Amino acid sequence: MQIDPGLFQENERTQPTVLGRQSLSIGPLDLESGARLEDVVVAYETWGTLSPARDNAILVCHALTGDSHAIGWWSRLVGPGKPIDTDRHYVVCANVLGGCQGSTGPASLASDGKPYGSRFPIITVGDMVNAQKRLIDHLGIPCLLAIAGGSMGGMLALDWTVRYPGSVRKAFITASGAAHSAMQIGFNEAARQAIMRDAKWLGGDYPLDEGPEGGLAVARMIGHLSFLCEEAFTAKFGRRLQGKSHYEYHTGVEFEVESYLNYQGDKFTKRFDANSLIVVTRAIDYFDLKTLKRSTTEYLFVSYTTDWLYPTHQSVELNAMAITAGCRSSHVEIDLPFGHDAFLLDADVQGPELCALLARE
Amino acid sequence: MQIDPGLFQENERTQPTVLGRQSLSIGPLDLESGARLEDVVVAYETWGTLSPARDNAILVCHALTGDSHAIGWWSRLVGPGKPIDTDRHYVVCANVLGGCQGSTGPASLASDGKPYGSRFPIITVGDMVNAQKRLIDHLGIPCLLAIAGGSMGGMLALDWTVRYPGSVRKAFITASGAAHSAMQIGFNEAARQAIMRDAKWLGGDYPLDEGPEGGLAVARMIGHLSFLCEEAFTAKFGRRLQGKSHYEYHTGVEFEVESYLNYQGDKFTKRFDANSLIVVTRAIDYFDLKTLKRSTTEYLFVSYTTDWLYPTHQSVELNAMAITAGCRSSHVEIDLPFGHDAFLLDADVQGPELCALLARE
Repeated sequence: MQIDPGLFQENERTQPTVLGRQSLSIGPLDLESGARLEDVVVAYETWGTLSPARDNAILVCHALTGDSHAIGWWSRLVGPGKPIDTDRHYVVCANVLGGCQGSTGPASLASDGKPYGSRFPIITVGDMVNAQKRLIDHLGIPCLLAIAGGSMGGMLALDWTVRYPGSVRKAFITASGAAHSAMQIGFNEAARQAIMRDAKWLGGDYPLDEGPEGGLAVARMIGHLSFLCEEAFTAKFGRRLQGKSHYEYHTGVEFEVESYLNYQGDKFTKRFDANSLIVVTRAIDYFDLKTLKRSTTEYLFVSYTTDWLYPTHQSVELNAMAITAGCRSSHVEIDLPFGHDAFLLDADVQGPELCALLARE
Repeated sequence: MQIDPGLFQENERTQPTVLGRQSLSIGPLDLESGARLEDVVVAYETWGTLSPARDNAILVCHALTGDSHAIGWWSRLVGPGKPIDTDRHYVVCANVLGGCQGSTGPASLASDGKPYGSRFPIITVGDMVNAQKRLIDHLGIPCLLAIAGGSMGGMLALDWTVRYPGSVRKAFITASGAAHSAMQIGFNEAARQAIMRDAKWLGGDYPLDEGPEGGLAVARMIGHLSFLCEEAFTAKFGRRLQGKSHYEYHTGVEFEVESYLNYQGDKFTKRFDANSLIVVTRAIDYFDLKTLKRSTTEYLFVSYTTDWLYPTHQSVELNAMAITAGCRSSHVEIDLPFGHDAFLLDADVQGPELCALLARE
């Protein structure tokens, strides 16, 4: 058997201990808005080996503030021996266009050597998917065995299946929806306003080392409020005070839940760009999938009883949309008290369901 | 029959067209924190006439950002011929201590002629009730026929019944709870942080004409997100665009729901003080009613199926607490798609229930 040198090279690149995050220049990208981005870079990671038949590739799509390191943030489902099995599958995960974890986004340097800032165009989920498609083409994958994503990642997965029909055999879509409700847009808008009403936002053209950190932290707190649910908050924190036995009657931290939210907010400002949050929330607010009729994909939709941000009825609607389109499709609702975060935490139910999806002929 | 001159004077003062909002100086107030406030003022309104037997008074308690004008914000339940009937009852409503609609709060001028700002002490629901008790004593009401309140107002009503047992015959408590869950504290903390992380907050000592308006507007948006529910947001706004038929791909308003939230946020900064929001949210986060066992009040608790901020189980718990304490008590859950706001909007079910409560011997 003769080894394809290109493939061999590709395989060598997939050793995570050696290579970690890689970057691919995909050239200019025409956007759905009519704008054009020059010199777009996609940051990505791969694990495992593309089979000679090139039929074992799985693309993992991250959620709002995620990155290409799927074996980190989705370690319950992605890794050696996991449902998305890096020993058997060729697993690819890319940071989205507009993000700030290696792919081109508002904090990237434009051709003048300064951050795009306010010059970064508003993008769509479709634009993100078009960028990913160039990466998948570059990696030599003619058809994905599967695409998997939760929340925003689920929207990318859905878009893939209608934008590039025939390119995705199976789709695992968890805690997601076909289009944001007014409430979901509302939470995103409050987060955007927290940033844009911070005086340090400067219309988007802040210095990267002195951005609207206060507003960005508040935006993240709003996010965390929507990621959990009452039960999860009660189980994690109850009314416990933070390192004290009595109220101290001041405006600082009194309750553990306050400490948690402030910690999450502050931590977020160290790893995420404010303009990126504006751009990616805008993209998912725009997303409005009307039909799956071009799709040839088999779908598995998962939702959670306590996820009020992406409630079950949105997955029920997606499943109906897939069946109407003539696709094989199923929906599983999982009863767990973790709110929207459940899609990152649950492997006990999601795991076997995902394995069954991938195993089906 | 000889007319009590004091009573007559009181009755004359209750003509709303003549007097509107009044102020009562209640002197110094010792607070639960151990601090003391000098020269406390309570702003209030009254409607109707105190009966000779002084047994027809109803105290109405407003929610977080309300004021003494109950016939305005609760016009569905309070007014001539309404369940709380200003033709038959002597209706009293007072702005809470710590508020900014006439009662002493952080924006009030301290003895040095400057706003309290950061010098305003942290207060509790009990402090608010103690201030109200002085007003009720001043008005010559030995025992309230009833106390009525929703949300934060329900907490004041509950506190009244155990702090001043024998002073309240009936309590109508809607969309409220015995203690905030971690989630409820979390929403309040995000709102507080939106204010306190605004550079213009200045530790609480901002000029009143140039306060942390950006943060305050965001705090209000967070509030509105919690006052509605997914169904209400969808019914009001859906995914309708704001005065356009296509996306315009910018960071300004695209969707109607965004316009609504920004409008509500901006409007709020014209009528409410940022420090007041910090103080009153803190007070209700502290509130933690453990028992009603000292109470002699008859309770009616109301909750709403779609109110996820003060969910039904909190009213179920309150009803059980009242029954355990040997009080007459009932709980009604109302199925309406308005979220927490339902307590302000519903008269069809709340009205008859409230009338029945007031009519029972």
